[in-house]
Parts: sequence; structure tokens; C-alpha cells
Amino acid sequence: MAYIDLGPDEKEFPGITGLMRFRPETAKPLNQLAEVLLRGPNSLTPGERELIAAYVSGLNECEFCCASHSAFAAAQLDEGMAVVDQVRLDPDSAPVSAKLRCLLRIAGAVRAGGSKVTGAMVAAARAEGATDPEIHDAVLIAAAFCMYNRYVDGLGTMPADDPRAYAESASRIVEVGYSA
Amino acid sequence: MAYIDLGPDEKEFPGITGLMRFRPETAKPLNQLAEVLLRGPNSLTPGERELIAAYVSGLNECEFCCASHSAFAAAQLDEGMAVVDQVRLDPDSAPVSAKLRCLLRIAGAVRAGGSKVTGAMVAAARAEGATDPEIHDAVLIAAAFCMYNRYVDGLGTMPADDPRAYAESASRIVEVGYSA
Repeated sequence: MAYIDLGPDEKEFPGITGLMRFRPETAKPLNQLAEVLLRGPNSLTPGERELIAAYVSGLNECEFCCASHSAFAAAQLDEGMAVVDQVRLDPDSAPVSAKLRCLLRIAGAVRAGGSKVTGAMVAAARAEGATDPEIHDAVLIAAAFCMYNRYVDGLGTMPADDPRAYAESASRIVEVGYSA
Repeated sequence: MAYIDLGPDEKEFPGITGLMRFRPETAKPLNQLAEVLLRGPNSLTPGERELIAAYVSGLNECEFCCASHSAFAAAQLDEGMAVVDQVRLDPDSAPVSAKLRCLLRIAGAVRAGGSKVTGAMVAAARAEGATDPEIHDAVLIAAAFCMYNRYVDGLGTMPADDPRAYAESASRIVEVGYSA
């Protein structure tokens, strides 16, 4: 049971989904932000961006968000869940591009605190070809999941009863996105 | 200088303002979220909600956000900056309502991590009259500032050169809001 009353069908709406039903006024910009950051026009693929979201959510130990965005990343990456698991375990040895590895390091620093990002981390990303918009978006994705994760866990919501729910959500997100 | 190129007039657009010019697509939902959370219809006053934002931003040591939202809170509270300073120093002894004190405790826990919020903290807030929507919004305001703070500092933006800029921004926010 969450800390606030999410209604008798709470179990059907795990994690952030129940909160979005509870407060549609805040759900709208929260979904629009996810849509722009994770699915909008970008030189980073949706899979790469979902990987950053899954990685940060894992570091924040947010079960619902980590399982959700791991599934969303896996559904949009050729290597599927194998690479998601490797990134979550150790991004430095995971089979991702050198550029994405640098952006994951920046994301990990953002998660620990904004001031943990250093000019050297940004320079390393740039040396591997990261552009200013990509660096901007990696930082904002990481920062945004520090919000979503705290929102979901701070209100004591429950993760999905059945882990298959995350793969089902992935199909829907890939098809229609966050704002539908 | 920020970690990304915010243009030759960077100094005129400190903190989040330069980032919002850099990426208007994400600025839109970020501003809409702030507008709903901090100024939308609510049983918590705008001053009380800005106080939560200032308190969390102070804990996160984000100079730009803390100075901004301290000024926005002061401009909308009868007690002005005095109560903002007291809350930032020690919310437990600050002259705020017992309900707001409980919500500030929850906000401080959210800032440390979503799982740091306990049922006892929520029960204490409810015993002082906090409603489910107020508890929801306190958690989401705290979570959102964990994002805004990391966004501003993770990209290495500069605070305002002249501290009077924050009071000027406050007049504009009170008059026209975040989405204008």
C-alpha cells in the first residue's frame, strides 16, 4: 500500500502509474518531459537514452523505474536485456560505445549530486564525439530520474506484482510513447 | 562558464535560465511542472510550496536554485526572508505551522532518497492535518528539486553575478509565473 490512498484498484497501477492517475495535473508535464527526453528527436537513440534512465534508476535502487526502463531499453537495443544487465553491473566494461560509456559516467555523477560532474568527465565525453546537446540530455535524463525515482519510492508505491508487466509496458511505450 | 556552450551572453542568463534557452523543448515541461507544483490551485500556499523548494535546494547546496526559491518564498510569505532563513537553518524550530514542519521533514527525507520516507513521517503529517494531495505534492516538489538542482549544477552553470537578480526574478514569478 502506498502512503496515500490510490484507490481500491491500486495493484493494477503500480509505481508511477497510480500516482499519475491520482494527480493528472502533474502527470502531464512529467510525461511530456519523459517523451521529449527519451523519445524526441535526438542523435542518441531511444535505446541509449532508456539505458541511461535504467542505469540511474538502478543506482537509486528504485525497483519499479529500473525494471520499467530496463525493459524499455532492452526493447529498443539490438543486444536486448544482455547489454542492459551489463551496463547496470559495470558500465566501464559493458559493450557500449566509448561515447555512451562517458555519458553513463556523467549520469552516475549527476545521480550522486550535480557538483560531482567534472570538466574532465565532460571533456572525455567530448573527445569520444559527444555533442553539447548529447551532454545536456544525458545530464537532464539522469537528473530527471533522480526525481521520478524519489517520487515513486517517496510515496511508498508498489512495483508490479508480475514482472511480465514491464515487457508489456515496453511494447506500449515503443508504440505510442509516454504522452498518449 | 558552463560545461556546454550557452552563447556569448551566458552571464545574462544564470542557472537554469541559460539551459532553458539552450533547449526549449525540455524547458517547456520543466516550466509547466514548476507552474503546477508551485503556483497551481492548492491548499498549500505558493509561499509554503516555495519554502519546500528553497529548503531542498539548500540541502542540495544548489546556490542558484536556493537563492531563487528563497526569494520567491520570501516574496509570498508574510514573514519574508526571516522565516526562509530559519527554515533553512533548522525547520524543527522555525516558526511555521506544525503541518508544514511535518511536510518539510518528509521533503528532507525525499531529498536523501525516496526510501528514506517512512510511514511514521506520513502519519505525523496527517495527524497535523495534511491531506493526501498535500503529502503527494510535498514529495513531488522535493523530488522535482532533486532534478532541477542536479540539472543546474551538473552542467556547471553559474549563479547570478548580482544577488539582487533573485528578488527581481521573484517579482516576475509572482506576477506572471513560470510558464510565461
